[in-house]
Amino acid sequence: MNILVINAGSSSLKYQLIDIDNKNVLAKGNCERIGIDGKFKHKTFDGRKIEKEMTLNDHKTAFQTVISAITEGDAAVIGSVKEIDAVGHRIVNGGDRFSKSVLVTDQVLKDFEEVINFAPLHNPPAMTGIKACLEILGKDVPNVLVFDTAFHQTMPPKAYIFGVPYEYYEKYKLRRYGAHGTSHRYVSLRVAELMGKKPEELKVVTCHLGNGSSISAVDGGKCIDTSMGFTPLGGIIMGTRSGDLDPSVVTFIMEKEGLSPREMERILNKESGFIGISGISSDDRDLEEATAKGIERSIIAQDAQRYQIKKYIGAYSAAMGGIDALVFTGGIGENSCLLREAVCSNMEYLGIKIDKDLNNSTIRGKEGDISTPDAKVRTYVIPTNEEYMIALDTKNIVESLKK
Amino acid sequence: MNILVINAGSSSLKYQLIDIDNKNVLAKGNCERIGIDGKFKHKTFDGRKIEKEMTLNDHKTAFQTVISAITEGDAAVIGSVKEIDAVGHRIVNGGDRFSKSVLVTDQVLKDFEEVINFAPLHNPPAMTGIKACLEILGKDVPNVLVFDTAFHQTMPPKAYIFGVPYEYYEKYKLRRYGAHGTSHRYVSLRVAELMGKKPEELKVVTCHLGNGSSISAVDGGKCIDTSMGFTPLGGIIMGTRSGDLDPSVVTFIMEKEGLSPREMERILNKESGFIGISGISSDDRDLEEATAKGIERSIIAQDAQRYQIKKYIGAYSAAMGGIDALVFTGGIGENSCLLREAVCSNMEYLGIKIDKDLNNSTIRGKEGDISTPDAKVRTYVIPTNEEYMIALDTKNIVESLKK
Repeated sequence: MNILVINAGSSSLKYQLIDIDNKNVLAKGNCERIGIDGKFKHKTFDGRKIEKEMTLNDHKTAFQTVISAITEGDAAVIGSVKEIDAVGHRIVNGGDRFSKSVLVTDQVLKDFEEVINFAPLHNPPAMTGIKACLEILGKDVPNVLVFDTAFHQTMPPKAYIFGVPYEYYEKYKLRRYGAHGTSHRYVSLRVAELMGKKPEELKVVTCHLGNGSSISAVDGGKCIDTSMGFTPLGGIIMGTRSGDLDPSVVTFIMEKEGLSPREMERILNKESGFIGISGISSDDRDLEEATAKGIERSIIAQDAQRYQIKKYIGAYSAAMGGIDALVFTGGIGENSCLLREAVCSNMEYLGIKIDKDLNNSTIRGKEGDISTPDAKVRTYVIPTNEEYMIALDTKNIVESLKK
Repeated sequence: MNILVINAGSSSLKYQLIDIDNKNVLAKGNCERIGIDGKFKHKTFDGRKIEKEMTLNDHKTAFQTVISAITEGDAAVIGSVKEIDAVGHRIVNGGDRFSKSVLVTDQVLKDFEEVINFAPLHNPPAMTGIKACLEILGKDVPNVLVFDTAFHQTMPPKAYIFGVPYEYYEKYKLRRYGAHGTSHRYVSLRVAELMGKKPEELKVVTCHLGNGSSISAVDGGKCIDTSMGFTPLGGIIMGTRSGDLDPSVVTFIMEKEGLSPREMERILNKESGFIGISGISSDDRDLEEATAKGIERSIIAQDAQRYQIKKYIGAYSAAMGGIDALVFTGGIGENSCLLREAVCSNMEYLGIKIDKDLNNSTIRGKEGDISTPDAKVRTYVIPTNEEYMIALDTKNIVESLKK
């Protein structure tokens, strides 16, 4: 079964065509700078490539470009659109309306319309992408929506409620939604597979660490808590984002600097975290270099990030009454052995203990258990694969239709 | 040695006269509604009482009233002011200027002046109190300042820095200061005493839970982290305060409701937490009643509070690489066995296990170990005694002067 996975951003459209039964990525690529000028990259499983600048007026044009590349010319991987069995769409935020992946119907599109403003930069282009698929591929090709927030919908109220007046929850649905849910779900399922256990048997803390980072507590296969909040600003410090704060910090800065809520939001999203503390870079690799040189503010930024991750692991262990496995994923989680070493140091009290050599060698897409043999808690590095997860959900929903 | 302990609030002045060598409180009382109308309460060790309405124009008048009550008339406990050997002042916030208790000198008063705005409601009346003491008791009676924030000054940068642009730290000294430090210090010293250990040997999590609440990690007698932040708004949800938040929650509400930073600050300080979520009360006891009746929003508020405390215990265990003792103090910590039971449930993975009967009976000022005999981590209830701690610091500083 060939599944086209679509990930539409505000000015981009990423895609993968996956032969799900054989777990093969046939082709993948990206339309960039949509609505600005346009750039298209495409690569097949056997190394054929397209890379060109071209006018991409809107997401519909971008989608047509993708379909052409897959089906026609030198870098085609299938003979016609008829070989696309279904489309899976990555949706950033489904609010509290969607707790699992769903088949697109008229009612589902109406429901999605109601939560479209939960991700104002991402949900509207996703909607355009869905409509383009329906139009170009026809209504017979099933479309499935896979929500980044769905995995977190199992959180209990004590984990998702904020300590502010309840009327804001009633009026604006202001609560914790979390992010990176598809990634957290993928690695929590994968770690069970690797450990030869059922997800129901395990208490897992999953750390998705990239330019945006979030940490989840997954108890028996269900997310019971996650660090990101109402928007992807909450939790730990990130490349340019502040993470959670004593809220008086926000009102104090606004008052002193005469900032509007939007200006403050921009500072917290774009000028905080690593770049804010270090003044050097938002990139973990740049800070690793600066830290090695002994630059104080870089050290503080990285120490703080790693310390906060360590505290989340401790907090979520308490939330679940213990922990069986710890997973690192995402760009930083998969590649920074320095971070993993710092986070896992002095955690023997919990049963976490990693092997230095295994830790150092498990980078650049490698998957594996990096714990010492005697560690009670198993620590894994698992490269995330959201596209595979989206394709798998799509396949499962499409197959259930046939029954 | 008789030490007068003074705790000046915006419109109040609390005091205790403590015979520190015998650990006896000779008299204690409170001047209330200073500058409004005035009310005075005074009680001696042997049950003599004064309780009257009277005009209290300012903190100086209030201080004179206290001196008169202690030294003259039916409720006197000493013969003259000459029997007051020293005065200890509780100071809410010493910024990053004071990391321990200090003897008042001209230089110290200048330094204190520089951080006076860190607690705009509490520091100025404290200054008035100090000046009244110097004037009325004379310069020969030593005055000592004991700061609520001093105990937290041992926190490393990774724990006190916020993830916002560093310029705000440089410009405004915007960082984590914490609160209730004198209480955290008292109970962390006391628990070592009760366990027959030195503070240096122990990793302790101290939970000061009252209308305001904070939790600290005390490693080897030193505070390495605490939940309250720049102001006493951060950390866990409290009676009327929100605790830490995804900061987008703050800017979102301000934007939607058209609120100024000051209005938002008021909502976060006065209308959030228990009262905000439950809509019923800011008082833990009221919510315990409402929760027992099954009122949903009360259950959510209490579940969230207890869950957050549990997560802090887990987080700080990770921060210290384990935990030897857990301490509950403060109005709620000393009295709510329901809260302690909820927080300590399912924490065997960490070595925490409490005895139901001991937990239920250790209330209303009782001190004790409430753990089961086999628990690896000892859980204590310790009624806090900030006045005793202030008096003890004062005695130690005064005695060191004589050497």
